[in-house]
Amino acid sequence: MKKHLNIAMIGTGFIAKAHSNAFRQVGHFFDVPYELELKVLCGRNEAKRDAMAAQWGWAETTADWRDVVTRADIDIVDIATPNILHAPIAMAAAAAGKIVFCEKPLAMSLPEAERMAEAAAQLPNLVWFNYRRVPAVALAKRMIKEGRLGDIYHYRGVYLNESGNDPSKSATWRYRRDESGSGAMGDLLSHSLDLALYLNGPLSELTAMTHTFAAGRDVDDAAMLLACFENGSIGTFEATRYGVGSRNRNTFEIHGSCGMLGFNLEELNRLIYYDATEAPNLRAARNLMVTGPGHPYSENFWKPGHTIGYEHTFIATLGDFLLALSRDEVFHPNFEDAAAVQRLLQAVEASAGSRNWVRL
Amino acid sequence: MKKHLNIAMIGTGFIAKAHSNAFRQVGHFFDVPYELELKVLCGRNEAKRDAMAAQWGWAETTADWRDVVTRADIDIVDIATPNILHAPIAMAAAAAGKIVFCEKPLAMSLPEAERMAEAAAQLPNLVWFNYRRVPAVALAKRMIKEGRLGDIYHYRGVYLNESGNDPSKSATWRYRRDESGSGAMGDLLSHSLDLALYLNGPLSELTAMTHTFAAGRDVDDAAMLLACFENGSIGTFEATRYGVGSRNRNTFEIHGSCGMLGFNLEELNRLIYYDATEAPNLRAARNLMVTGPGHPYSENFWKPGHTIGYEHTFIATLGDFLLALSRDEVFHPNFEDAAAVQRLLQAVEASAGSRNWVRL
Amino acid sequence: MKKHLNIAMIGTGFIAKAHSNAFRQVGHFFDVPYELELKVLCGRNEAKRDAMAAQWGWAETTADWRDVVTRADIDIVDIATPNILHAPIAMAAAAAGKIVFCEKPLAMSLPEAERMAEAAAQLPNLVWFNYRRVPAVALAKRMIKEGRLGDIYHYRGVYLNESGNDPSKSATWRYRRDESGSGAMGDLLSHSLDLALYLNGPLSELTAMTHTFAAGRDVDDAAMLLACFENGSIGTFEATRYGVGSRNRNTFEIHGSCGMLGFNLEELNRLIYYDATEAPNLRAARNLMVTGPGHPYSENFWKPGHTIGYEHTFIATLGDFLLALSRDEVFHPNFEDAAAVQRLLQAVEASAGSRNWVRL
Amino acid sequence: MKKHLNIAMIGTGFIAKAHSNAFRQVGHFFDVPYELELKVLCGRNEAKRDAMAAQWGWAETTADWRDVVTRADIDIVDIATPNILHAPIAMAAAAAGKIVFCEKPLAMSLPEAERMAEAAAQLPNLVWFNYRRVPAVALAKRMIKEGRLGDIYHYRGVYLNESGNDPSKSATWRYRRDESGSGAMGDLLSHSLDLALYLNGPLSELTAMTHTFAAGRDVDDAAMLLACFENGSIGTFEATRYGVGSRNRNTFEIHGSCGMLGFNLEELNRLIYYDATEAPNLRAARNLMVTGPGHPYSENFWKPGHTIGYEHTFIATLGDFLLALSRDEVFHPNFEDAAAVQRLLQAVEASAGSRNWVRL
Repeated sequence: MKKHLNIAMIGTGFIAKAHSNAFRQVGHFFDVPYELELKVLCGRNEAKRDAMAAQWGWAETTADWRDVVTRADIDIVDIATPNILHAPIAMAAAAAGKIVFCEKPLAMSLPEAERMAEAAAQLPNLVWFNYRRVPAVALAKRMIKEGRLGDIYHYRGVYLNESGNDPSKSATWRYRRDESGSGAMGDLLSHSLDLALYLNGPLSELTAMTHTFAAGRDVDDAAMLLACFENGSIGTFEATRYGVGSRNRNTFEIHGSCGMLGFNLEELNRLIYYDATEAPNLRAARNLMVTGPGHPYSENFWKPGHTIGYEHTFIATLGDFLLALSRDEVFHPNFEDAAAVQRLLQAVEASAGSRNWVRL
Repeated sequence: MKKHLNIAMIGTGFIAKAHSNAFRQVGHFFDVPYELELKVLCGRNEAKRDAMAAQWGWAETTADWRDVVTRADIDIVDIATPNILHAPIAMAAAAAGKIVFCEKPLAMSLPEAERMAEAAAQLPNLVWFNYRRVPAVALAKRMIKEGRLGDIYHYRGVYLNESGNDPSKSATWRYRRDESGSGAMGDLLSHSLDLALYLNGPLSELTAMTHTFAAGRDVDDAAMLLACFENGSIGTFEATRYGVGSRNRNTFEIHGSCGMLGFNLEELNRLIYYDATEAPNLRAARNLMVTGPGHPYSENFWKPGHTIGYEHTFIATLGDFLLALSRDEVFHPNFEDAAAVQRLLQAVEASAGSRNWVRL
Repeated sequence: MKKHLNIAMIGTGFIAKAHSNAFRQVGHFFDVPYELELKVLCGRNEAKRDAMAAQWGWAETTADWRDVVTRADIDIVDIATPNILHAPIAMAAAAAGKIVFCEKPLAMSLPEAERMAEAAAQLPNLVWFNYRRVPAVALAKRMIKEGRLGDIYHYRGVYLNESGNDPSKSATWRYRRDESGSGAMGDLLSHSLDLALYLNGPLSELTAMTHTFAAGRDVDDAAMLLACFENGSIGTFEATRYGVGSRNRNTFEIHGSCGMLGFNLEELNRLIYYDATEAPNLRAARNLMVTGPGHPYSENFWKPGHTIGYEHTFIATLGDFLLALSRDEVFHPNFEDAAAVQRLLQAVEASAGSRNWVRL
Repeated sequence: MKKHLNIAMIGTGFIAKAHSNAFRQVGHFFDVPYELELKVLCGRNEAKRDAMAAQWGWAETTADWRDVVTRADIDIVDIATPNILHAPIAMAAAAAGKIVFCEKPLAMSLPEAERMAEAAAQLPNLVWFNYRRVPAVALAKRMIKEGRLGDIYHYRGVYLNESGNDPSKSATWRYRRDESGSGAMGDLLSHSLDLALYLNGPLSELTAMTHTFAAGRDVDDAAMLLACFENGSIGTFEATRYGVGSRNRNTFEIHGSCGMLGFNLEELNRLIYYDATEAPNLRAARNLMVTGPGHPYSENFWKPGHTIGYEHTFIATLGDFLLALSRDEVFHPNFEDAAAVQRLLQAVEASAGSRNWVRL
């Protein structure tokens, strides 16, 4: 018998749609001992809330998240709101002993993130840094662990979109500091830093700058940094909403003594791999199609040669969470992991302010 | 109030999983006035059938398709079986007045396909030539219709996979003529031809060859043809299971007086477009990311910059079918369209046998 | 002491410039025991002839090729004229005992080509099928010879340019049958066929069609064929001047039991290689940069990572010819090899006319 | 009548070969009123010197550069030596009133560079920052000038090779500070910075780090920086000899309000262009083949569709220099321009040392 888990989700925007989809789909692709119930959808705008509930089959709706986080019949609280609400909802849900899921970035600030991580420490929790579960990214992680890159020299994380230059987008909460905490930093750079921590381990120091192109905007449009990692490698990061020409180019490249890996979210079924141990005249970047056989999640989704899309990263995140839950294991990335990202974001901001290197 | 439609699906393999997913997902992405009920799953292997029913939420299961095609509470019969069973099931379902969905290729032979098309002519019906609904393909169709390519000169359809060379695959029904009717022809070439008919209109004549590489195999491993189209353009087609190096490279390229379009299923969020009306020094192939704005299905799935995968082609096919149904419109591709493909497959086989050009 | 070889070149067009460059450059990149003297440039248009002689340092000029082919001080006669003049010049030069170089296609027809090959049989001779000496192509040849592709299944040769659709070009001799013998066939398809013969060996049979898009033009704009090779593989070829979107896309792809190779002249420093003997989860197309180390001609030109261009294919052809000459070895591709291509072109034309398969 | 210019070249290595080639070839592709005479080749190693002189046709050779820089019959002194010798030779040549050509980086230090620039100020001079003359780069410059990118937001310059990790290379002067002045900085970063100055104008401030991976090596293996430009854009730069996987990946990307441009030296016939003023559903990166028509240098080299290679950048640099000389115009990049690069290199080193931002 599968155990029922009742979910309350707060939020009705784009990302809430991606979460709803994951809740609906996870059981189709992952063999998890849970039956997820889409119990309550919570959102301030009644029309949006009702439309979304109808579309995705949420059993109930409500306007106020305070109504649901303490309800006895709710097992999971999923936070898909503007950043400003992450902490209050998460703290309340944790206080009520719920399993808590939260969108990234975890918080508006590092102290907030640390309080949240502490509050949720004894509870199963998850932060939707979904790109760790792109099969190509998970494969990169595995290959690095297997030593296929040898000693790491360079890490390069570049995340470009062009939203900042699009007047239709700049009216949203993502462009207001009091609701978002930051701009490209929380929105884009947090993803790049989470992947860097996942793939290349902790940073030891960094120097950074941020920049706002739009007049009158109070969040960063772009953030750039130089960094050293504890493993001896060095890195550059760049995240910008003014990367005209790219809609969602979240890339990394890692160079080591034995090889190189490269990834671009816009081609998420692909991983570039260069094996420096090959005969010199056959060495070249390979364009791996990461749909199996033998690739992460290739048994979950379709057959080799059949691609997946953006939404599958949420399904795989949720699938792994539920498997960890069933085995009483700690899931990653969790609030603690997301607080580590927030620590880096704070350092970026501090460095950009002081114009100095910051030790981590 | 949404109308309920009860589905019986025959088949429990890979493609039945893709269909199940479409049934589950269509309402999340398309605003259709139907509630789909996954009523009966039908398959000969009890363990497979039960596992799939559990995974995808089919309410009942049964071993014999004859049990379900006449059941009064079934509205849609969906055929996801080996080719040998397409005709008997479809004919029975049509006789019972059901809506009929059928996997491609429609039939084992042209006469069979024509009988099926005739039988289903008065009923809503669909053939899963799903690649018409890749957003990039639908965009290509729209651009051609808008005249962006001008007069068409060349059409090139190449579909490569490497399954024929994979011993683990060659034991399945797809490699036995009495269950499949053909090899690469029905499996791969049918897709290429359907896209050609969709994008470039009817062929007027063709010459073809087929070849079987594997000793003792009685289906074609590869089929190649030269063709003339009624619109004055000329074309080449190649479909093979011995295209070592490619898992699912279903490509087309179309050259016209005003431009060129190119597509590769392995990069299904992309469409190559060359605008020959540009200033000569700025003319170049563009690599369009077909995730919106303003692209087919971009309002249905995710936001611009967020990719979709293989399965969405089935969801979009089903979504369009249900919209057509609600408006009492004829849906394409239907049995009639699939019989047109079968007519071409027959011509290919005839030409390969006689080693002559065949008029269509 | 290096031996002097005096050259007379007939022709003052684009390709004569590429030949002149090779004569000037070969000694800089190849260690050959010859000193080439650019002795006489021959062309009907005095102004063009004088300009070219001044630019490239031809010592003398003359209007009539008959003046030079029998001159005692001429060692090499190089034919860079419209096709109509290849045979008369080559026959005269051979009769005079000269070393003969000839642009491709060798002749206007197969009988002419055979006469030329016979006449030149006892003399060192060369046909400028220069693409055999693209380093990536030479590497492909070496890899095939080493058995890296295993048994060959498929060969695909596609050569696209868009010249036919360009009014500025269609006034030249290349678009008049009585001067060129054919259109895309001699111009483009001959290159594709020469590479196929070089890389994959003799064809055993073919069926073909040709097409002319432009009203009133008496040469083929496009030629397409299906073919069987003596090694058991099958192939498709397409050559067209209506491949809108491509300026010089001369490509081949070869699939075998152990791997795949792909080439595109527009990226001539690259070779695609797929090694099917790799572990399944690491199998992928590699994008080899063929500039060394260990690649053909990488010791001749620049250092690894430094690319070469179009002209180097002529230099390498000439370099290899001179090395063969110094060793008294037969050079390929020579008139005999080019007659083999002409045999295929004749078969293409015959098949296109009769609409039947042609045995070779 | 063409004027004779006698050249003395100091150096016999790889780059001296590229220069020799340019001297030999420039008259074939550029209509310049000069006849270049390869008069004296100067190098310490007699065997290398003699071999090179024989191969490229240098009339005389000598061991000591002091012999030639004051010779009355020498017009141009070309410096292709290790960096340590640039200044003494250039100063002596300038003192003797010669035209001076110098390899990049101009000098071992900024003071040295400034002295050299001052000394050569009244004489025609050139620094071989050859990548400005890649046709794609020159096209980028033209497009930026035409305003096609609008206001510039981001500049990204990344130059990767893998030489540092190659034991066969690390024994050369390029890896010894007292002969080279720096490592990746002078070797690679100088190219990136020259292109940035050329394309995007002066920098206003920067912060940088350098790193040496190899134990016991006294030059930087990698240099990375964040920068602000005077035009309001911001940039990142990375240059490394530990970019395993790339042999010569010299790239830039520029994002502006109206579009984006991208370049990679490994594909030097290509320029990526994204036009943000297109209709949203047709906006995409275009892959321009920069071989004409209407592209820089396309009238000089081959016909559209026929690629050039590494060496042509030297030919075009020299061609433009000679044209400027004939018109009594100042050529760029000259010693002054190269000193500007050196100013940035010094700032990088200062910033890396102090770990502070440096104003320029």
